[in-house]
Amino acid sequence: MATQLLAEWASNLQYSDLPEPVIEAAVKSFYNWYGCAIAGSNHEAVTTTKKALWPFFGKKTSTLIGLGSQADAQHAALINGISSHVHDYDDTHLETIIHPTAPVASAALAYADITSDASGKDLILAIVAGIEAECKLGLAVWPTHYDVGWHITSTVGAIGAAVAVGKLAKLTSEQMRDAIGVAATQVTGLREMFGSHTKAFHAGRAAQNGLVAALMAKEGFTSSSTSLEGKRGWVNVVSTENKLDEVFATLSKEWETEKNAFKPFPCGIVIHPVIDACIQLGKEIKEKGKSVDDIESVKLDVHRLVLELTGKKKPKDGLEGKFSVYHGAAIGLVIGKASPAEYEDSLVQDPRIIRIRDKVEAMVKDIPPESCHVSVKLVDGERFEKDIKYVIGSIRKPMTDEQLATKFLDQASKVVGEESATRTSNSLWTLADMVEIPVSFEDMEGS
Amino acid sequence: MATQLLAEWASNLQYSDLPEPVIEAAVKSFYNWYGCAIAGSNHEAVTTTKKALWPFFGKKTSTLIGLGSQADAQHAALINGISSHVHDYDDTHLETIIHPTAPVASAALAYADITSDASGKDLILAIVAGIEAECKLGLAVWPTHYDVGWHITSTVGAIGAAVAVGKLAKLTSEQMRDAIGVAATQVTGLREMFGSHTKAFHAGRAAQNGLVAALMAKEGFTSSSTSLEGKRGWVNVVSTENKLDEVFATLSKEWETEKNAFKPFPCGIVIHPVIDACIQLGKEIKEKGKSVDDIESVKLDVHRLVLELTGKKKPKDGLEGKFSVYHGAAIGLVIGKASPAEYEDSLVQDPRIIRIRDKVEAMVKDIPPESCHVSVKLVDGERFEKDIKYVIGSIRKPMTDEQLATKFLDQASKVVGEESATRTSNSLWTLADMVEIPVSFEDMEGS
Repeated sequence: MATQLLAEWASNLQYSDLPEPVIEAAVKSFYNWYGCAIAGSNHEAVTTTKKALWPFFGKKTSTLIGLGSQADAQHAALINGISSHVHDYDDTHLETIIHPTAPVASAALAYADITSDASGKDLILAIVAGIEAECKLGLAVWPTHYDVGWHITSTVGAIGAAVAVGKLAKLTSEQMRDAIGVAATQVTGLREMFGSHTKAFHAGRAAQNGLVAALMAKEGFTSSSTSLEGKRGWVNVVSTENKLDEVFATLSKEWETEKNAFKPFPCGIVIHPVIDACIQLGKEIKEKGKSVDDIESVKLDVHRLVLELTGKKKPKDGLEGKFSVYHGAAIGLVIGKASPAEYEDSLVQDPRIIRIRDKVEAMVKDIPPESCHVSVKLVDGERFEKDIKYVIGSIRKPMTDEQLATKFLDQASKVVGEESATRTSNSLWTLADMVEIPVSFEDMEGS
Repeated sequence: MATQLLAEWASNLQYSDLPEPVIEAAVKSFYNWYGCAIAGSNHEAVTTTKKALWPFFGKKTSTLIGLGSQADAQHAALINGISSHVHDYDDTHLETIIHPTAPVASAALAYADITSDASGKDLILAIVAGIEAECKLGLAVWPTHYDVGWHITSTVGAIGAAVAVGKLAKLTSEQMRDAIGVAATQVTGLREMFGSHTKAFHAGRAAQNGLVAALMAKEGFTSSSTSLEGKRGWVNVVSTENKLDEVFATLSKEWETEKNAFKPFPCGIVIHPVIDACIQLGKEIKEKGKSVDDIESVKLDVHRLVLELTGKKKPKDGLEGKFSVYHGAAIGLVIGKASPAEYEDSLVQDPRIIRIRDKVEAMVKDIPPESCHVSVKLVDGERFEKDIKYVIGSIRKPMTDEQLATKFLDQASKVVGEESATRTSNSLWTLADMVEIPVSFEDMEGS
């Protein structure tokens, strides 16, 4: 009955059922996703995909984010899914480490672009339905499904994408059930692919698979009525344990969309507390009329994983910089931010950054991973201290709208320029009031 | 090393490496597959897929078999894969119950249609490489992979399709390795879907996924170098046991393509011995100048599965007829064949067939499933007996070229007419001599 229950829940869900914080979380998720997609749009994984597949593009109806061009909805879903996930900078449902928006929004926006009657609220409703479906499914099989070796973002993502497009396409509950089945049977994403282009492909293919599933179900293509819970169905084949009924009972009672978190910095999450602390300390030092160039020493107390995963003392380039808590501390103090620009090769090799980086020492302490303590001493003897209990970007201390906007503009400006990035940012914040989804948010004049 | 080994084997394989019986088996596999695709092309699963997805069709380059039209290569691979598998009448690699040609040939032909330099021999080489890859992989995880709940035809089929297209696209071994990875990560096909349109979708989607994987790898899209054998790679995620190294060691030593079997009758394989016997007996009765309408009794000795699976005494329509050994015996005796026409509602309801059907009795005996004994008594007391040791269509008694042609024409004539079916049949037999793959075999005048 789980498949039927999810299908009925999804097809019956109305915008008026959504609590205000859920709507706000969905708008933020879409906004953050869009910025990541612009930032990833010039990545090699996107370029090669586009080069391989453009000979097959159909009627160009749907935005290729950041690329100033369009593709048919299927290829747009695929490519936007890849670009939004390729920098590992998109959102995270922390309980399951699903990156929920990439598959769902990539599919929903591509489809919204080919319908003439989807409003901003329709898109928000679709995104919430999709994120709830995929995260509930993820919770039902967490952690065994991931432990087996599945990339959970895409395996559940296809089903979330089918539900999201199913909402926009106004599927009946029977069609929604078939859409869930066609999506569920396409289990895409082996963790073995991490470290290659294929990881980001997972998110894009999940979006495309979900889109296709909803489109086919709408025309009467049939699937199993027990795709998820059946003996040879999704949960039993892809996981050794599940609590499907228990988790689905929380649909519309507990909203996973609200638990979606945004990464403030484009590097491994374990370094985030140190960067958070150092940005604040650098600001305080400057506000006191002092210079960060006069730092004599920086001492970090960190969780053991920080040094295990990001203990690179002398990173040589941008990629290695992402695995160096020392670089993270230096850019926080000196530049006051950690955007993609701070992980470019030239910045990692900048003598001013290296000078401070070499003064950083790290000690492992018995503290939670979302915490740290940083102590900075200047040459004049003055000390600055910062204790981070809950790092920025966690559920207890989410990024503010302003911080999300800074993240968006930092990312997007590098690819499409500041003016265009600002216009797109402004238009995206008005999503809930849009009467009709524009052909491209990037074409819009600011509103 | 398994992924690397398969990639190198596939990229190095030459037409001159193929033993003559393997080439012959490949031509027959392609021929049989093509006929099944024509027969399935007017099925609802195909019609709804086409209706849902035609708005996304790109440049029409590749044949939609039986439909007299074209689509872009991706959609052609998908749709031909569905139509060729939808009647469950395509080929079977008996050791693994993989239906190997549907994913591989659907992808290879769709791609051959967009290259200008693929010959018939190139296509044969691609099909052999693809079938070997998928069947070896299937053997490596059989039976645990299937028992878990995976539809093995499509899960290995995508990888076979990637290898086949990779051959036609002349991938280097490194590109082939990446193609295998992108295909492997798309694990499509839950057995829960059996009984719905989605079962046939599996074969089509596998073809399309393999095609896309090869195309992307050709442009430099990267994947894991250990996609199959890695800790979180294909065999370890989708099966609880495997003998990958042992099976891959037989590549080019033992050819799976040669072990491919063709179904002589469009119904469950357990009835085949009875149909085989009754066709022969009906012929003998007529040759003796007697009439099958004068049959007094028909006694069948069969394996227990025959009555468990196909024991329907009074089938009401064509579908039920497929689950009736009594109907199978009657059409064999009266009509002398069991083609799709003999499973139409009107034939199952025909009084002449019902009269003989009601005279059939079946007894379970301790005999192998590929055997049976049939005894027919006429009203004048004369008896006709037939012992089947190896049923037609088995490896020990394969269908002859003439029988394959009859199967092809019976299927295809119903959809495209006898004249067109005959022309297509004639041209397909000349595959190995074709200088260039024609845009459509169906357009060709007989040669």
